[in-house]
Amino acid sequence: MDDVYRDRIAALTRIMGERGVRHLWVEPSTGFRYLTGHLPISMERLTGLLVSAEGNVALLSPTMLAQELDGITEDVRAWDDSEGPTRATAGILDGVDKLHVQGSLAMWMFDALRSSASVDIDVDPGCMSSLREHKDLHEVDILRRSAKIADDTQVWISTQDVRDLTENQLRGRIRAHFLELGVDPSPPLVATGANAAMPHYEGGDVEILPDRPLLCDFGAALDGYWSDITRVFMPNGIEDQVSKAYEVVCAAYDAAFAAVAPGVRCRDVDAAARKVIDDAGLGDRFIHRTGHGVGLDVHEPPFLDGGNDAELEVGHVFSIEPGVYVPGGFGLRYENLVYLGPDGPEALNRAPRYLRLGAEAG
Amino acid sequence: MDDVYRDRIAALTRIMGERGVRHLWVEPSTGFRYLTGHLPISMERLTGLLVSAEGNVALLSPTMLAQELDGITEDVRAWDDSEGPTRATAGILDGVDKLHVQGSLAMWMFDALRSSASVDIDVDPGCMSSLREHKDLHEVDILRRSAKIADDTQVWISTQDVRDLTENQLRGRIRAHFLELGVDPSPPLVATGANAAMPHYEGGDVEILPDRPLLCDFGAALDGYWSDITRVFMPNGIEDQVSKAYEVVCAAYDAAFAAVAPGVRCRDVDAAARKVIDDAGLGDRFIHRTGHGVGLDVHEPPFLDGGNDAELEVGHVFSIEPGVYVPGGFGLRYENLVYLGPDGPEALNRAPRYLRLGAEAG
Repeated sequence: MDDVYRDRIAALTRIMGERGVRHLWVEPSTGFRYLTGHLPISMERLTGLLVSAEGNVALLSPTMLAQELDGITEDVRAWDDSEGPTRATAGILDGVDKLHVQGSLAMWMFDALRSSASVDIDVDPGCMSSLREHKDLHEVDILRRSAKIADDTQVWISTQDVRDLTENQLRGRIRAHFLELGVDPSPPLVATGANAAMPHYEGGDVEILPDRPLLCDFGAALDGYWSDITRVFMPNGIEDQVSKAYEVVCAAYDAAFAAVAPGVRCRDVDAAARKVIDDAGLGDRFIHRTGHGVGLDVHEPPFLDGGNDAELEVGHVFSIEPGVYVPGGFGLRYENLVYLGPDGPEALNRAPRYLRLGAEAG
Repeated sequence: MDDVYRDRIAALTRIMGERGVRHLWVEPSTGFRYLTGHLPISMERLTGLLVSAEGNVALLSPTMLAQELDGITEDVRAWDDSEGPTRATAGILDGVDKLHVQGSLAMWMFDALRSSASVDIDVDPGCMSSLREHKDLHEVDILRRSAKIADDTQVWISTQDVRDLTENQLRGRIRAHFLELGVDPSPPLVATGANAAMPHYEGGDVEILPDRPLLCDFGAALDGYWSDITRVFMPNGIEDQVSKAYEVVCAAYDAAFAAVAPGVRCRDVDAAARKVIDDAGLGDRFIHRTGHGVGLDVHEPPFLDGGNDAELEVGHVFSIEPGVYVPGGFGLRYENLVYLGPDGPEALNRAPRYLRLGAEAG
């Protein structure tokens, strides 16, 4: 195993010791990748890493993945399709009374674990997330390069003639563009006109309106680390109501960014953005939180929402993404990723704030 | 709501009644899509459909998704980021003593449900899967067209010069090719030479060997319905050991296909494939089950494995994919999707069984 993974497991077991977590189960997930460098495709075959506070690591693995996962640990408990996982699972959990699992664990895995062994199962009180939310300089470097690729892709869109495209066709082009650049895209959100009033609207077989704002929100993974950026491409001659609302959204972003510092509570950053939008009389149009952490998961702690008292710390990387949504009218959002470094916050995204719609009418 | 979704919910509630399941919780998932046509991006925001055996449907939805999910039901319980989901969740679960959930439900959702209401939670004993595994003719039509796109993509690969490509570069090209065709690819498996001995090896920054077999296993979703096909591209002059093993694998496929009929147990189809490989002295090289159902999920019931006594029925669509894996040597698999129709089994994939490696040496 590489030193980086050895160090992460050592750090994890230290935190587990501090919090009284004796055994942690990590199913194939970004947590598994974080600890081992591997992300096995186990699908419905029970697979997992058992980490003990003493630093022991055991692996439950289907036979067909054993070669691929070779090197993670000496202690491998393999099972094959004809036998099923019950015996091997009972073996790996022998002597474990209380098992903590990730919040991502699926119910069928939960059922398979508790039916194989007499064990009390609960969700990890945050050992993994408190480790993962502090990015080291190597991770920040990857996130910075990942953000640059997303920036370039937003600028690339502004050079495209989108007049004859549907939202779904542009979504396909964006994904293909990312693939050409060697990164792994998630499905982009592309919303023309009033469709953007639904914050998580993905896109449809709908022609892009050349005289309405076009919202593009997307990301791609570089070595597993995600970018996440939103820009709104504005056509010529957009009405004042929209352009002024966009200024409010950008001012909300600036206010939230300015509030970022070590020790500031997540909810206070959310409040800083919200105040700007409230003051502009648009408070009821900002219907989501201000941001979320990003790393090997697109959404991970810290969450910048009104209910989160947790404090920001050096090493956090998160989005700031206020928005304004007018059902049947328009939707606007401005989103960058931000790294809280030892010298203060740094916006990882640098794409221009104002981008024109390449296919604008006239 | 469209008639198709109304009918599916009616069929689901009928099965629930037969099995004594009073309330079923369906989180955003392929099950949610199957019942509503929607697949909301809810991420870490608690969202779900509550279906009662009496046919009532209620929706728990974050405010930001409410517009997008409009029309599923009149009974919407919305919550926003600043308030959190607890009150709305307690409201929707009021009067529910026992709740069944899908196996895919994440532990954090399970925790959020049980901490919001005093409710006993268990995994659905198969109401959803027994409905979903029977494809109607419209679904089979989509799956057939989806399979055709995958077939064409395998043939397209055989026309590509892969000499200067890495596995990952070819993976990117395959995904981009699918995107151009308007379907949504999953990450392909591309394995050159001995890498294919790991059945779920995805690919790496490894140059494709022009004189070794190249295994490509992939699929893409058309209207949500997956294709899944594996072919091995053979170079000129491959040694007898490999070409004979490939004949064994294909004969195992043929034997499994011939065994498919209504009422035949899944494990007997698995056994039919396994017998051919066993008889050739390669039994210990076939380290996975013979196949899996496919639909809105790439892997779903029925599973063709040695432990599954369930019987095949008309309407089932599943893969048959025997393989032979020699660590450090080579890996071979042949996979088609098969539909069990009223007139017997139909292979949905028609790509040639023998495909040449486009970049063969010399």
